[in-house]
Amino acid sequence: MRDKVNLPETFDTFSDHWAPRIVAEYNGNDIRIVKVDGEFVWHSHEDTDDFFLVLDGLLDIELRDRTVTLGPGEVFVVPRGVEHRPVARHGEVKMINIEPSGTHNVGEGSPQSAAVAI
Amino acid sequence: MRDKVNLPETFDTFSDHWAPRIVAEYNGNDIRIVKVDGEFVWHSHEDTDDFFLVLDGLLDIELRDRTVTLGPGEVFVVPRGVEHRPVARHGEVKMINIEPSGTHNVGEGSPQSAAVAI
Repeated sequence: MRDKVNLPETFDTFSDHWAPRIVAEYNGNDIRIVKVDGEFVWHSHEDTDDFFLVLDGLLDIELRDRTVTLGPGEVFVVPRGVEHRPVARHGEVKMINIEPSGTHNVGEGSPQSAAVAI
Repeated sequence: MRDKVNLPETFDTFSDHWAPRIVAEYNGNDIRIVKVDGEFVWHSHEDTDDFFLVLDGLLDIELRDRTVTLGPGEVFVVPRGVEHRPVARHGEVKMINIEPSGTHNVGEGSPQSAAVAI
């Protein structure tokens, strides 16, 4: 059984962006924390929803027909198959993300590294 | 597609304890927020892990051999099949919990109501 994890303390242990850390596992999913800044790429996940909970900062989740802006304490789920692009336009964003264990941010062969366990 | 949900604003809409509200769905799981106070009952889930993220207050998760105390920003997962009892000894606790959609807190026939969508 994993010990509890303190999220603020864990955020203090890293500074790289778009490089998630796995803080817990739940039924084959990774609960990940990540710092992001600037633009990600347009992508979609065919086999999984994409869960976002912003803890600090402002995150735009661009959809093809609108933009959903999340502030601290705001939750949004991009359903599977829906194209989206996360963009942090106003400085660093800290957030929680959930993905099935082993999922890469934008699929196999992407330049993004896989999430790493803390 | 569901709209985003603001967690602090949603917490302000209810005051009952041990009565989760579903704020999002992710791959067949409910992301729930709940206010708790006092003792719950000993229980385990045979088919699912139990995810806790405390947002406010102090929550004791009693296990048979030890107690894990979670404060704000702390995450803990009780693996499936492990007996546990959540206890808020020091006043109200606000937290996020994840369970497979349709799961009751302590199984079928329990006095706890199922989670309701907001």
